[in-house]
Amino acid sequence: MTSAEPRPDDSRPASPPRRRPGGRTARIRTQVLDAVLAELGEHGYDGLTMDAVAARSGVHRATVYRRWGDVGGLLADVLDAASEDDWGPPDTGSLRGDLAALNHEIQAALTAHPPIVMALIAASFRSEKADRAQQRLWEDRYARCELVVSRAIGRGELPPRTDARRLLIAATAPVYHHLLLLRTPPDPRLPEHAAETAALAASAGAFTEFPPAGDA
Amino acid sequence: MTSAEPRPDDSRPASPPRRRPGGRTARIRTQVLDAVLAELGEHGYDGLTMDAVAARSGVHRATVYRRWGDVGGLLADVLDAASEDDWGPPDTGSLRGDLAALNHEIQAALTAHPPIVMALIAASFRSEKADRAQQRLWEDRYARCELVVSRAIGRGELPPRTDARRLLIAATAPVYHHLLLLRTPPDPRLPEHAAETAALAASAGAFTEFPPAGDA
Repeated sequence: MTSAEPRPDDSRPASPPRRRPGGRTARIRTQVLDAVLAELGEHGYDGLTMDAVAARSGVHRATVYRRWGDVGGLLADVLDAASEDDWGPPDTGSLRGDLAALNHEIQAALTAHPPIVMALIAASFRSEKADRAQQRLWEDRYARCELVVSRAIGRGELPPRTDARRLLIAATAPVYHHLLLLRTPPDPRLPEHAAETAALAASAGAFTEFPPAGDA
Repeated sequence: MTSAEPRPDDSRPASPPRRRPGGRTARIRTQVLDAVLAELGEHGYDGLTMDAVAARSGVHRATVYRRWGDVGGLLADVLDAASEDDWGPPDTGSLRGDLAALNHEIQAALTAHPPIVMALIAASFRSEKADRAQQRLWEDRYARCELVVSRAIGRGELPPRTDARRLLIAATAPVYHHLLLLRTPPDPRLPEHAAETAALAASAGAFTEFPPAGDA
């Protein structure tokens, strides 16, 4: 569940492999979004300009302005494009394994060079449009990850009334917290630890939903 | 453990009550840091300028430039000043209660108006100096919170070899994750839920340290 484009160690992560083929419009979008990511990776949000993106993409400046409006519009489209892939959560056969694999993906994305995912998240603190698009992407990714929980319920690893979203956030939040907020050096054991903690808490009933009437 | 100045609902949170009294230097610092917070609360990082801070504080512009250098220097000093208070973690008599009270403080700080803590964290994505100071403040706050864990060990609620930092991060990370990254509306049950999850995981042994030799 990377928070932006899928492949953390691909320098051109913004071109989803299954984007609908053909069409000048689609081709222009790919060129422009690739250029946004390349510029963002090199210069960060502060160095991102409409003109540099136009120049790098080879797309006419007027087209870039007309279609994306401003830097926030470009970032929002990069984030929206990330949801067009066919990413799915890892399937390792156990809850703990799935959560650990997910956390490894997150850690890889957040520590990738160039730091595109970091730059997109940082941008979401500054651009309203990027912020809303980043929220849509988080929602998309967490929704897809609910499969990890339903599979664990199917295997009898978790009670049927497990709150998938809370479990997923408990499992992944420490990785984001360390790398995005505390900015501690990546700890290779952290993905496993956080997964194990959430799985243990889940077995202890921490995420079991109560029927709405009995809710405190 | 608010991530910035102590009192989340105080509009002048930057003047630590126990700052060493007297002295023109100390008085100037208080005036300037108060002005930084007021400007930040009103205009955010983008609207924060040396000149506006000088004007608002009533301190000579040249003094502000000489002593703080730039906006990053001002923010870093605001963050460093936050560590000069005598904040301590809540003491409710139980691990779960302490963690929940801590999470309530964090949630209050992150949803306060004006959004000073949010603005400081956002600034840490943009200014190297603010980033380093924010890291020092996280470290200070988490170190003080270790008392919550040692008290729980003393009461026999936790095994002696509990990794305090990991437990504290598991308990608090979901609150930060929701409010700072996912930007979901504050959920009044979240502070309790996250505390309960971490306490359950702790009882299940999730944070028990192994002797170094047996470490994987």
